[in-house]
Amino acid sequence: MEKEIDLGKYTLRTDLAIDHISENIDIPGIKSTTYLEDDIKITTVLVEEEGSLKIDKKKGNYITIEFSDVTDYTNREHVKEVFVEKLKELLSLCKIGEDQSCLVVGLGNDRSTPDALGPLTVEQILVTSHLFSFHEIHEGFRKVYAFTPGVMGKTGIETSDMIQSIISSIKPDFVLVVDSLASQSVDRVNKTIQMTNTGIHPGSGIGNTRKEISQEILGIPVIAIGVPTVVDAVTIVSDTIHYMYKHFSYTKANLNNPMNRLLTGSVNYLKKDVLIDEEEKKKLFGMVGSLEEEEVRKLIFEVLTPIGYNLMVTPKEVDFVVSKLSDVIGNGINRALHKNVENL
Amino acid sequence: MEKEIDLGKYTLRTDLAIDHISENIDIPGIKSTTYLEDDIKITTVLVEEEGSLKIDKKKGNYITIEFSDVTDYTNREHVKEVFVEKLKELLSLCKIGEDQSCLVVGLGNDRSTPDALGPLTVEQILVTSHLFSFHEIHEGFRKVYAFTPGVMGKTGIETSDMIQSIISSIKPDFVLVVDSLASQSVDRVNKTIQMTNTGIHPGSGIGNTRKEISQEILGIPVIAIGVPTVVDAVTIVSDTIHYMYKHFSYTKANLNNPMNRLLTGSVNYLKKDVLIDEEEKKKLFGMVGSLEEEEVRKLIFEVLTPIGYNLMVTPKEVDFVVSKLSDVIGNGINRALHKNVENL
Amino acid sequence: MEKEIDLGKYTLRTDLAIDHISENIDIPGIKSTTYLEDDIKITTVLVEEEGSLKIDKKKGNYITIEFSDVTDYTNREHVKEVFVEKLKELLSLCKIGEDQSCLVVGLGNDRSTPDALGPLTVEQILVTSHLFSFHEIHEGFRKVYAFTPGVMGKTGIETSDMIQSIISSIKPDFVLVVDSLASQSVDRVNKTIQMTNTGIHPGSGIGNTRKEISQEILGIPVIAIGVPTVVDAVTIVSDTIHYMYKHFSYTKANLNNPMNRLLTGSVNYLKKDVLIDEEEKKKLFGMVGSLEEEEVRKLIFEVLTPIGYNLMVTPKEVDFVVSKLSDVIGNGINRALHKNVENL
Amino acid sequence: MEKEIDLGKYTLRTDLAIDHISENIDIPGIKSTTYLEDDIKITTVLVEEEGSLKIDKKKGNYITIEFSDVTDYTNREHVKEVFVEKLKELLSLCKIGEDQSCLVVGLGNDRSTPDALGPLTVEQILVTSHLFSFHEIHEGFRKVYAFTPGVMGKTGIETSDMIQSIISSIKPDFVLVVDSLASQSVDRVNKTIQMTNTGIHPGSGIGNTRKEISQEILGIPVIAIGVPTVVDAVTIVSDTIHYMYKHFSYTKANLNNPMNRLLTGSVNYLKKDVLIDEEEKKKLFGMVGSLEEEEVRKLIFEVLTPIGYNLMVTPKEVDFVVSKLSDVIGNGINRALHKNVENL
Repeated sequence: MEKEIDLGKYTLRTDLAIDHISENIDIPGIKSTTYLEDDIKITTVLVEEEGSLKIDKKKGNYITIEFSDVTDYTNREHVKEVFVEKLKELLSLCKIGEDQSCLVVGLGNDRSTPDALGPLTVEQILVTSHLFSFHEIHEGFRKVYAFTPGVMGKTGIETSDMIQSIISSIKPDFVLVVDSLASQSVDRVNKTIQMTNTGIHPGSGIGNTRKEISQEILGIPVIAIGVPTVVDAVTIVSDTIHYMYKHFSYTKANLNNPMNRLLTGSVNYLKKDVLIDEEEKKKLFGMVGSLEEEEVRKLIFEVLTPIGYNLMVTPKEVDFVVSKLSDVIGNGINRALHKNVENL
Repeated sequence: MEKEIDLGKYTLRTDLAIDHISENIDIPGIKSTTYLEDDIKITTVLVEEEGSLKIDKKKGNYITIEFSDVTDYTNREHVKEVFVEKLKELLSLCKIGEDQSCLVVGLGNDRSTPDALGPLTVEQILVTSHLFSFHEIHEGFRKVYAFTPGVMGKTGIETSDMIQSIISSIKPDFVLVVDSLASQSVDRVNKTIQMTNTGIHPGSGIGNTRKEISQEILGIPVIAIGVPTVVDAVTIVSDTIHYMYKHFSYTKANLNNPMNRLLTGSVNYLKKDVLIDEEEKKKLFGMVGSLEEEEVRKLIFEVLTPIGYNLMVTPKEVDFVVSKLSDVIGNGINRALHKNVENL
Repeated sequence: MEKEIDLGKYTLRTDLAIDHISENIDIPGIKSTTYLEDDIKITTVLVEEEGSLKIDKKKGNYITIEFSDVTDYTNREHVKEVFVEKLKELLSLCKIGEDQSCLVVGLGNDRSTPDALGPLTVEQILVTSHLFSFHEIHEGFRKVYAFTPGVMGKTGIETSDMIQSIISSIKPDFVLVVDSLASQSVDRVNKTIQMTNTGIHPGSGIGNTRKEISQEILGIPVIAIGVPTVVDAVTIVSDTIHYMYKHFSYTKANLNNPMNRLLTGSVNYLKKDVLIDEEEKKKLFGMVGSLEEEEVRKLIFEVLTPIGYNLMVTPKEVDFVVSKLSDVIGNGINRALHKNVENL
Repeated sequence: MEKEIDLGKYTLRTDLAIDHISENIDIPGIKSTTYLEDDIKITTVLVEEEGSLKIDKKKGNYITIEFSDVTDYTNREHVKEVFVEKLKELLSLCKIGEDQSCLVVGLGNDRSTPDALGPLTVEQILVTSHLFSFHEIHEGFRKVYAFTPGVMGKTGIETSDMIQSIISSIKPDFVLVVDSLASQSVDRVNKTIQMTNTGIHPGSGIGNTRKEISQEILGIPVIAIGVPTVVDAVTIVSDTIHYMYKHFSYTKANLNNPMNRLLTGSVNYLKKDVLIDEEEKKKLFGMVGSLEEEEVRKLIFEVLTPIGYNLMVTPKEVDFVVSKLSDVIGNGINRALHKNVENL
């Protein structure tokens, strides 16, 4: 979970996914499809040159897999299957052949659980490259390397520099980068796998493109796989204020519905379509209520920064969930990369 | 980090410390002193029968050690020294003699970093009881046992029942309980050690006293040592809203001070005495601005609950800090319990 | 991996299995069957009163599952199935009903990999007892508690005392104890699961029966499940000397077989039936060669003891294998205890 | 603990130290001094061109620090001081200035305790390089990078290739490599720190110099720091057979000494000067007794190989000791590299 978008002194990696894609659906240069496999929702987005400028996202493919749970074995295997299928699809979109060699890079800090997804995934990777020299590997396998660069705070070395120098030594055909992400929305945490062939990169206009981990920088295809495992303090506060609007609007709209009154407190208003009443917002939250969401975020950021807190918000069961997620992604990668692998 | 205060379906252990003690200073039945050792602030509070009812805290001694950092070796050794001194003082207040045997209990979940303080501390404890039977122990040591009960979600066993049954078997003279706490305030996290001889106990009026870990229940003195390592999502949102008031009031009051205008963003308004302007609050935050702090907390709680998020907020470097804190407390306990121990 | 057989100052827990059972097959009071499921070998032994005295093993049932590998997913699931089946059989032999409550105890030290099998297994256990009080559990599940006592060197508390006091508090109907074992033979390490309803207990004639974890002591059925994960230094030396005999006898016997001469070095003579030539032994190993195996062990023990080395021998990949074994045993226990569980 | 000496199919890294230096003391081209600081024994050896050929060790400096214990705080700090002093001496011998930048490399596998010394040490390293760009670092510090390449079995990448490519990217002035070693003698395990400026390298005559991590390969000074944390099965068997000779010779020589007869079993004959009686050896061990030590090793190796056991021998408390050793070496390196560092 390295930080890559410089937002004043505070930095944060954006999600790999494209937000609010439903709103973008009619934008020229953006093609998006969404479908369900049971309760798993898959969204694939193709951003073309024309659309890229409009939504300020790099052109390329974005795949998002949304699910509710990976702690149960059956659900987990199901998510894994969908992940394998979509990863194969992305490899194929990138025209990566079955014999091309792969370097799997696990970003993040293995001593900090929410940031350990990359290193834990690398633990699961079936590494084969050294076996090729011994002729111990037969058909159905490709050459795979794996590597955990560690975080800059502990190595003092720029991560993308380290990856680039390893690549120049071992010359793989493509790179898979796995990382924990800081989500921009509470309800995605540990419940989304995001994939893209546009690399892991800072937002536009910041200028530190040197840090980017992408095909442009490394010269070979880079597929980034990420799971949001934390939100920052700004997000939790901003989301909660937004939920307050929704909660109030929902409560007001259903005030005279006796059924709902009985259920107060237990209705998940988040899953309802609630029209947020702008007048209510202002009454409820005064000046703050009249701000746009992004303005609220900036305000909260400004308020929290001088206090100097460097906080992260994670689900309480994060250790357990991250270990299960690393199984999904690590063994999913194994299956997508090698024809002859089932489970390990 | 077991949860003990039932707040609807959601539960949370309160801090062991007494809040806002400066406001309570004139309450009959409460005696409090505060002093500094360099930049370490020590507060000791004695709650007597009369005061106990007024502030709804059990009668007994409460000691709070506030510091800014334990990651630096020199600071850490300094905090450790203060901790050893205050723990000895509390042992003495409880009339615990130098030869009395001790059971150290590390509460919490060793697989979840912010909750691992208890188990990690137990790792540091110099256990001596089994050596006494071999006559391998000489003067200057007392009999010490240590024990990590695990968390109820993983054992299915009520923690206080487990402690009680171990006590009835080994019959120690007193118990030291070490636990991570959920703080009620963001700025205490990892920066306070709290000690009390009133046990770790749920708030009054809830009636599940069965779960309490205290002298009343166990029949022998219980000294609880806790460090707040997380805050919950409700606290971070509620604190941030409170900081917003402060930030605005401070900014407004200093609007015409050119020095401060230059420094915007970098002034830590939290450390300033800022009078919060109630009218501003309402203008700023509408109906929410007119609520009392506790009402805001309940509102946020109500808003977050149905969403089903079980979030915790910790500093990003929690793994590193908790390991250093377990050194302070574990080795501090060793030094306080045994005359002949320096460092391990 | 607590030490239980007192062998001078040095102690060691014996395997739970019965050695060389093929030689014992005609002993009255001992009934033994062996069969293969693919390459998994299952041996069940019933020791009756009469046989018990003869082989100096407690009367009861002993089940041994021998396999070659659990690191491959398919093999592991196969071993798990066999384990579930045999554990159910043993529960049934002990007349333990489907609704009887169970305490799972994970012995050993979670900070020492080869000794962490018990604690790691407990991590996998589906604990249900606390859910029963909330009526959240439906048909097909029984009440299960789990507990990791830690090792005496770190707690100062006798393990069996701790278990007994927990039992007297929660009153389960039976106990499952999981532990790492020190093997008496190199070729069993990580390749055998041993089960018995005779408890985990020290060898006869030593008199510290107080430490035993068994039905006699705890008053309820105790099923012990163990996997040898280490051998001690005495065993590795003694086994190697024995292998030397075998290797020489095999080499000599095949000296004139040109096929074998070509294969020198790669033939696994251990899997061959090799008649050890007593004369050769003496020529080869002098006085040492004329000793019985048990005498050689005693000699090696005598030689190594004053040097003060407290060594253990494990396979290099022990971390990986022990984690896979804890999956087999933990999830195997889940399936054997609850009708409605598949995999977690 | 990568394997570097190819011994048939089996490989093993030699100790970094020079064995039996007392015997070599008169060899031209080898200068050696030994002295004690309390109970810590320091041996420094300079191998010059002329001596290099004679003892088949690369020319350069070899420093060995032998101690009995690092688990006690006082001893540990003492060993740390000696280590700091000798490391500074070696830096100075290599003409490495106080401002020259350093890459610390932690070899080994952090998931396997005896092999985790390198990665654990890196955890302790005060990394400063990224701070230099922010001008946050003042006098008394040098630029330090740190890096954990992982083991080839998990990365598929040759370790020295990885280091070389990192070096070509960050261009440090010199390299410190920290590694666990497989000892060639039981009594050195966890009780010796070895340092050399000759690199970590395979034995001569094997020809895979590509794998070497040394100044010749990397082009900048390489200081290797190693601690033997395991012995292999061949060593434990071979050492025990050797101890048997010693034990017997000692016992025989003292047969008529009544004092010693009373003490049988408790005398540490290893610390005595014992003349091994060649005739006794043969009587005792037959043909095996007539073999040279190296021949016995080869024989044991030949016997154990086809069985396919990949065993390692470590002290039982290896987890605890390795964590303490990583404190000594990691914080020792910090102190030796930066003038302004005391302890962390």
